[in-house]
Order: sequence, then C-alpha cells, then structure tokens
Amino acid sequence: MPTLRIALAQVNSTVGDIAGNAAAIRRWSRAAADAGAQLIAFPEMMLTGYPIEDLVFRNSFIEASRAGLATLARDLRADGLGDLAVVVGYVDADGPAATSAEAAPGRGRRDSSALLFGGEVVARYDKHHLPNYGVFDEDRYFEPGTSLTVVRFAGVDIALTVCEDIWQAGGPFTAARRAGASMVLNINASPYELNKDDVRLPLVKRRAAEAGATVVYVNAVGAQDELVFDGDSMIVTAGGELLSRAGQFTEELLIHDLSLPAADAVPNQAAKTDAEPLPIVEQFIDDEMEIVRVEVPAEPRPAHGDKHDGGVAERVADAAEVWSALVLGLRDYVNKNGFRSVVLGLSGGIDSAVVAAIAVDALGPERVVGVSMPSGYSSGHSRDDAADLAKRTGLDYRVEPIQPMVDSFLANMSLSGLAVENLQARVRGVILMALSNQEGHLVLTTGNKSELAVGYSTLYGDSVGGFNPLKDVPKTMVWQLARWRNTQGEPPIPDNSISKPPSAELRPSQLDSDSLPDYDLLDPIIKGYVDHDLGRDDLVAAGNDPALVDRVLRMVDLAEYKRRQSAPGPKISGKAFGRDRRLPITNRFREGGAFRPV
Amino acid sequence: MPTLRIALAQVNSTVGDIAGNAAAIRRWSRAAADAGAQLIAFPEMMLTGYPIEDLVFRNSFIEASRAGLATLARDLRADGLGDLAVVVGYVDADGPAATSAEAAPGRGRRDSSALLFGGEVVARYDKHHLPNYGVFDEDRYFEPGTSLTVVRFAGVDIALTVCEDIWQAGGPFTAARRAGASMVLNINASPYELNKDDVRLPLVKRRAAEAGATVVYVNAVGAQDELVFDGDSMIVTAGGELLSRAGQFTEELLIHDLSLPAADAVPNQAAKTDAEPLPIVEQFIDDEMEIVRVEVPAEPRPAHGDKHDGGVAERVADAAEVWSALVLGLRDYVNKNGFRSVVLGLSGGIDSAVVAAIAVDALGPERVVGVSMPSGYSSGHSRDDAADLAKRTGLDYRVEPIQPMVDSFLANMSLSGLAVENLQARVRGVILMALSNQEGHLVLTTGNKSELAVGYSTLYGDSVGGFNPLKDVPKTMVWQLARWRNTQGEPPIPDNSISKPPSAELRPSQLDSDSLPDYDLLDPIIKGYVDHDLGRDDLVAAGNDPALVDRVLRMVDLAEYKRRQSAPGPKISGKAFGRDRRLPITNRFREGGAFRPV
Repeated sequence: MPTLRIALAQVNSTVGDIAGNAAAIRRWSRAAADAGAQLIAFPEMMLTGYPIEDLVFRNSFIEASRAGLATLARDLRADGLGDLAVVVGYVDADGPAATSAEAAPGRGRRDSSALLFGGEVVARYDKHHLPNYGVFDEDRYFEPGTSLTVVRFAGVDIALTVCEDIWQAGGPFTAARRAGASMVLNINASPYELNKDDVRLPLVKRRAAEAGATVVYVNAVGAQDELVFDGDSMIVTAGGELLSRAGQFTEELLIHDLSLPAADAVPNQAAKTDAEPLPIVEQFIDDEMEIVRVEVPAEPRPAHGDKHDGGVAERVADAAEVWSALVLGLRDYVNKNGFRSVVLGLSGGIDSAVVAAIAVDALGPERVVGVSMPSGYSSGHSRDDAADLAKRTGLDYRVEPIQPMVDSFLANMSLSGLAVENLQARVRGVILMALSNQEGHLVLTTGNKSELAVGYSTLYGDSVGGFNPLKDVPKTMVWQLARWRNTQGEPPIPDNSISKPPSAELRPSQLDSDSLPDYDLLDPIIKGYVDHDLGRDDLVAAGNDPALVDRVLRMVDLAEYKRRQSAPGPKISGKAFGRDRRLPITNRFREGGAFRPV
Repeated sequence: MPTLRIALAQVNSTVGDIAGNAAAIRRWSRAAADAGAQLIAFPEMMLTGYPIEDLVFRNSFIEASRAGLATLARDLRADGLGDLAVVVGYVDADGPAATSAEAAPGRGRRDSSALLFGGEVVARYDKHHLPNYGVFDEDRYFEPGTSLTVVRFAGVDIALTVCEDIWQAGGPFTAARRAGASMVLNINASPYELNKDDVRLPLVKRRAAEAGATVVYVNAVGAQDELVFDGDSMIVTAGGELLSRAGQFTEELLIHDLSLPAADAVPNQAAKTDAEPLPIVEQFIDDEMEIVRVEVPAEPRPAHGDKHDGGVAERVADAAEVWSALVLGLRDYVNKNGFRSVVLGLSGGIDSAVVAAIAVDALGPERVVGVSMPSGYSSGHSRDDAADLAKRTGLDYRVEPIQPMVDSFLANMSLSGLAVENLQARVRGVILMALSNQEGHLVLTTGNKSELAVGYSTLYGDSVGGFNPLKDVPKTMVWQLARWRNTQGEPPIPDNSISKPPSAELRPSQLDSDSLPDYDLLDPIIKGYVDHDLGRDDLVAAGNDPALVDRVLRMVDLAEYKRRQSAPGPKISGKAFGRDRRLPITNRFREGGAFRPV
C-alpha cells in the first residue's frame, strides 16, 4: 500500500483578508514541506475566512477570491512548493457572479475546495450539503455542488468534500464509496459548541464506514464575531480506528503518515457496495452524484524510514474547554478588528471579575483597563474586591466615582425609583465610552446569559460595550468557570467575588435575589426555553415549579427588546442569543401568560 | 358563467396574537357576509402574524395555530357565517412538529392556507415556492408543499396559492392551468418597497396569463418590526385586465363581483396547454405538482341585480407613499408593543423635525414628547426652530439644558476632542432614557440612512432609542419628504429646519460638510454600494469621483460596528440596514482601501 505523509493545517484565517490568509497558507505549506509532507489540507473558506455572509453578493469579493486562488497557486510554485498538493477552501461562482441577493438568490455561488499543484488549480469541488439551520444560512448564499471530485494523487484516490457534507448521510460519502476512493478529505469551518467534540468522533467514524475509506477531517481554529472554531481535526480509518487527533483552540500542523490502498487495488464499486451493508442508522438518499476524476502527476514516494504519527491529543474538562473558547473568542475579536486594548467596569462582582480574567488571559494585563466606578450604594467590600482583582491580574486599574455626575442629573430632572437605578448604570456607560473615545479601547460588557435572558440589565447602561465574553454563559456556569480558573496557577479571582451573594448595588442593600429566582432554579428554565424551545407545559412537566416557570417565561419574553441592542459574544451553547435565535420583537405569543406592554 | 361575490380582506394582524387575529377575522367576515360576499380571503399567516421567525421552532406555537384555526372555523359557524368560504393563512406542521431548529431544520413545518366552511377546515394548501433572499429566510423555517389544491366552490374551480408562488415562474400557476382552474387565489404578506407596486401589477398579469385564470391577489397591510406591508390587493383577469385594486397602507375590504367560467365549462388541460403558448420570459420548471381537488357544498347563487365593482384606487406620488410607510411603520411598532407614547430629542434640525411630524401623524400630538436639549454650542436658531416645530405640531414640548451634566463629567475626567463631542450626545441619550424610565415613553432615534451608513453618529448618544423612523431614509429623501409634507395642509416643519445647512452642533460652528461630502454626492454612492452591492470600480465607472468613492466606501465599511447596535426602523428600499444586509463585523475586505483599525 502506498504511504502518504499528509499535513492537517488546523489554522486561523480572517474574513476578507485574502492577502493575509494567502500568506498564512504559504507559511504553513512551507512548514509542511519541510516536514516531508506530500499533501496539506486547509479548512473550509481558508482563503476568504468564514462565514462571509452577505459579502458573497459582492462580485468584487468573488473576483478577489478567484484571483487570490490563482495567485496563491503561482506563489506556492515560486516558493518551491509546486510538488506539494495544497487543498484550500475559498468562494467561487459559476461564470460572472450574479449582482445581488435579489437578482438571483443563492444562484451560482459556491463554497468550494481547490487542489493546487505545480502552480495550477488542478481540481475543484463544490460543497454539496448546505446547512441552513442554527447559525447557518447557506441556502441564502450558495448553490449546492452536484458532482464529487476524486483526485488520483501519488497512487491514491482521494475524494474532496466540505464540512456539512459529513453531517448528513448520503451524497458525497456514498459517492466516494462508489468511486472506490481510499481517502475522503473533509475540510471544515465547524463552530464550537460545548461537548461538540463528543459528537464529532462518532460522526466521522460513521461516515468513514459509509465511504469505506479513511476520513481526514480538518477544522479551522479561531474566532469570527460570535463563532469560535475549535479545531479538533482528526484522522479515522474505514474500520473506525482513530489514528490521530489535534487539540482544541490552538493552531496546529498535524502530520501523519497514512498507508492507503493503491488506486488500482481498490475493488470495483459494484462489488464493494454489494459486499458490505452500511452500518448507519439514517435513511439517506444517494443523490447519484456524478464522479469527476482528476489525475495529479505526482509519483508515489518510498515510505519514510521513520513513520510519522500525529498522536492523539488529550481531551480536556468542560470548564477548561469553555474557558479556552471565551479567551480565543475575545482575543480574535480584539486583534482581528485592530483594537490595541480593552476597558471594562469592575464592580467587585463575579461577572466583571471573570471577564477581566478572560481578558488578561487573552491579551495580557497591559492591554486591559479596569475601572472601578463606585456610587454611594457601592459597599466597601465591592471596592476592595475590585482592587484585589486588579492586583492579582496586574491590569491597568482606575477609579472613577460616579456620584458627582449622577447628582448633576438628579439636580436637573425629577427622577425616582428604577429611573434612578438605571441612571447610575448609564453614567458608568458614559464614562467607559468616554475612555474608549479618548484612549481607543474596545469596551467590554459583562452581562451573563441568565441576566440577558430575563432582561436584568440597563439598556445603554451596563449593556454598553462592543463585545461580551459572557453573552452565552449562564450565571451558574460563570461561578464554575471562576472556581476552575482559580485552580490553574495563581488564582486571579478574589474568593469574595465568588462567594458573596450577587448584587447590582443600584439601591441600598439590593440583591439579585430581590428580583430574580435563585440562579440554580433559573438557569434550567432558561436552558429549556431558550436552547431547547420547550413550551410552558413541557417545562412544568420537567419538574419546574409552575409559578416560577410562568414568572421566568414572562421575563424572557419581555426582554427580547433589550437583547436586540446587546453586544456580540462567543457562542458556546446550543442556542446563543444572536445569530441563531431570531424572534420578532413585536410578538404577542407569550408562553409566560397574557400579553402585557413592555 | 357563474358570478361570485368575493371579498379581499386587506387587513392587519399581529405576530403571536392568535386570539386577537381570530377576532379580526370574525369581524371582517361578518362585514363581508353583510355585503353579500360568498368568499372572503385573508392574507398569508393572518392567524399568526408574519413573519414569525424562530417562533416556528416552538411546538406550543404550532399547536396554538392549529387549535386556533379549528376554533375559528367553529366560531364562524356559531356567528352564522358557516356558508361563507373563509380563506386564511396560518402555520401548520406535518404530524407532531419537530422540536428544534437543530433537530430538523425546516422539516415538516408549513406556511399554509386553509379554506373554512360550515364550521370545518375543508381544504388546505402548503406554500410551494419559499423565498430565501433579502428579508426572507423561509428555507430555514418551512418545507415546500408539493401539491396544488383546487377547490370547487359554487360552480367554480379555485386554486389556492401563497405569496412567493406568484413571484416565481412554474409550479402552482402552471399546475392551475393544467387543473383548468378559473381563478387562482394568492394570499400574501408582501413587504413594501419603494415602487414595488409598479412591479406587482405586471407580475400578476403575467401569472394570470400563465394560469389562464383570473388572479385574486390579497396582501396584508400593517407593520411588523422593520417590515411594512402596504396592501395593494388586486384582481386581474387571464387576459390581463385589472378589474379592481385596493389602496396602500390602509385596511380595506375590497368587494367585487366576478364572472368566472363554470368548472365543467373549462376546456381540458391538454387542449388548453397546447393551444396557448405562454407569454412569459422566464424559463420555468413545471414541478409536476400533484393536483388535489376538493368540493365545497356551496350552491351557485343567482347574479346580484346590482353588480358590485371594487374599483381601482388611485396611485400616489413617491413621497406620499414613503411618508405613509413611515407613519404606519411607527404606529404599528408603538401600538403593537403596547407603548402609550414616544419621546424624542428636538435639535431644530431636519431629521428630528421630520421624525416629530411622522410621530404626530402616526399617534397624535398628545402621545409625542419632544425635548430640546441645548448645549453651549447650540445656536439660538436651533432652539427657536425646535420650539416652532412644537408649536406647529402641538406635541408635548420640554427643555432640558445639558451643560450642567456635561460639566460634571468634564470636571472629573480628562477628555478632549471627539470624546467631548460624543459626551454631549451621550448625556442627551441618558436624559431621554431617564424620561423613558420615569414616564414610560418609547425613545425614538432619528439618524437617517446616510448618517448610519457612514457612521456619522454617536454610539449610545444620538443612536439611543428603540425605533428609528428614518433608518432606511437617505438624507436627500428626508428633505424631499419634509417639503412634500409641508404641502399637505398646515405645514408642520419650520422652513428654517429645511433650508439651513445641517449641523450636529457638538463644537463651535460645526457643519456636516466639515466631515461628510455633500449629500447629493454621498447618497448615490451609498445606494450603489449598499443597495446594489456595486464594487469600487463599478461606482467609479458610474461617474462618481474616484477619491470620493474611496473615502465613502472606507466610512461605510468601518461603520458596520455602530450599525449593529442601532434601533430597528421601517424598510423602504431594496436593502435596508438590518434584516436583509448581513455582514461580518470582523471583516478586512474593504472596497474603500486597505484595512485600518476601527
């Protein structure tokens, strides 16, 4: 059997930065060639970044992607890498692209994979299965490919596929079996979700069995707005053996020697299809994809004396996984958008303490400004806890008391109750934005998912900010993350911030529990209602107190309006607020009871 | 030929308010029956409101829609309306609905039309063509129907279709011809766009010819978040004659007597299809839809002595059309969300003056609070113009000078330049939100599309607010609207607000023209870049100055970040910011030149 040394480039790219992404491809390709690899595979849409959303309707963007690909092929040859096969994702279109979304919705634009060799684009494949659920809108953007490309490279038949192709039964993987491919290369931009790595391995095994071929699964790493790509690239044989697996949340060049059946030794398709019943459970449609065969003029190389094994990276605990996702999500948002630094308010409470610790892990303490903004209602321990956090993390610490500004509003307007509470939060927002304008920091907001869900925040107050690391993190998980992080080296978060009862400190002796149920009771209801779309009766049947369910659902229904004006943040759950939860603001269907004006 | 008296119910519904919408259906059905109608048709999704977005993934919502439909049928009979055929749009699902977006994207959920008669649901049809472009995401939400329902009612064969079915060639209209239907009923929730009414009539004519049948086109009226439904319902014969047409932006029961070929008099499909070549230009696929025939036990009635003609409503000028859309958009947003009143800042400038006039037209002066918030940089004429506007419109006028609050920040922080300019706008935002919290008003923000596009606004400053009537209105159109409105009765807008050069008044002698090109030059570039996705080279080729194009495109690219945190507002153009323009925030593809940090 021929042996192929392949490199899985689990790397980061930036949407729109075609030149920068091409440079990264050349850099990683050089490293792969230096390690003796014959083929390197990059993630889906590596050249353009992913997701490109409505940029796809811009012809100038499509043309930049196509031209960038051709230039990249030539540059790789000029780099002396002409005999390395480079598989890279990019966006393409059939003929001249249509001019707008309205003109031709989704027509002719392709989520494509190309194989570059000898200075040329020698093979292309267009993604067949297009996801159109959750965070995905690909029916809006792309037309599905209808043929499978099988490349004969160094004596081995390799089928090219893209991302969702592996998540649905039938289609390219079935066609790969018909084509007698020894290996299916699946390039991805698969967003992180808590425990998604537990789903991926069985999925890849199932498709490998379906294709009767080794599956090489390459995923992107990095963050793009609310999405975090976690890597977790892997190689699985047709028999279900995990040969190699990369870690999560770090760039990595995973190099592995694969012994694969030679192209001419693979039994013909009919025999193979008849002989082995597929061990899958889904009903699938064989789309009868046409098979396009391409021969790449690369000779098999003799097997290396030292067989290269990429190894299997260890899995990490849930808290470590989420923490890494939040750190990466923030770091990429800040760096890819060109901010030098961030600023956030430090209340002494758990949420701002955790965000500060994430920011320091992501950017280093010299790029993080923390501002304590005490009012007359701020307790002494709050100020002490904020100062303690600053000392532990080494961030740039400032104090700006808000009382003089609050008093100037109160002296000129007749305000009472909630209006006065919110006023304090808004004065803090004005201070943070003034620092942002004056010094150039990105403002971080720190409301957790539980607060966002029930609307326990001040619009244009504590919700001010361009990015929110905790946007998709329920309060109970915030505490878990804080405790876990404090076990990793020097604990950054003051114990007192973790153990004291949470309070907004906007009126004397205020506690979250005055307005909200215990978070242990609240979070499961939010998870059922938001992440799983359960109805009121389902939630009661699941054992939640009926009156509490009604109360919480009413709060969540009414908070939609505030959530529309909140900052993006990393998605870590099944359904984050934002991209994959789209609800009408104007809506009188209330699981929590009859309609009441907001 | 049998004569059918039909009623087109061009009416308003509210998303989620199934009980309220059902009550409206009963009310309008009573009116139609009193006028002698045999059939009444309501818009798409009348029972649930449209669009329902991710509510479709909530089983409890689907069940409420189904149960509501059955109850409605019984209630209509109880009302004595059992012999009126009532066609109504609602959401349905095949069997028990799937539990979440992830579980089964778009599977089994239907955008349906039902015919109610005699207390029963006697016929159903599922929308076949699903739009998935612009503001539409229907591939995410629904599965397409594959059969055409033809109802034999009072001696006439009527094909049921829904909205997008009429925008695409082939499918149900072709099948209606095959089925020999005399009439195709097309129920819609078709959002307004400037001049869309000019497109609709030729479209309906083309489909009527294609089907060889009279087309009855019923559209919703009313607003839902950013969408405005304008009505414009109509009846067009197979020969292309416009028999009757409703107005725009008002609820209306259009009643018309239609003489239609009797079901048994229609030639068979083969003869008909062969005999008449279709006068259409699109290539279409005949989806070979199955035809389901339903017989409703209603006898033909003798023709009325007095033939009822619905008439053809006059078209109005563009400015009148847009003004009506903005008034309806605001009125429905405020009323459907249960706000009693609105508050906005009055600068004396054109934008806030136009928004105030729209608000007074929408809600009456007693529900509109206008606040003048002068600073040290506000000119005397600005205060006078604001007061003049208040006097002309009769709104509730207040004055809150901002200098004391601004000074309290300046005394405690070291701020300069842009930070001081933005501080003033943010203090105004805090004042408006304090009034909102204290008195319950919805805050209106007033930035026009040109400002939003280039980011000429203060985040959390003048962008504060829950709704923005001018979100999709370019500055040059704001002036046109003001001039037009002042010709309609007593002019509400001071001439000085229209004629003076625009200024933010955040520093001495500041003018918009210090920072922005002339709006006459700016607006065409924004239209090309935003609405039509033209690239830099296309815009230069269209005659725009190259340096100006580069400058404007850079501003638009960089402003994406601010736009994400802006309020919804009515869509009036091809591509409003918001629902139908989705771009990554993190994105280094810049038509305007190389990437520069935001």
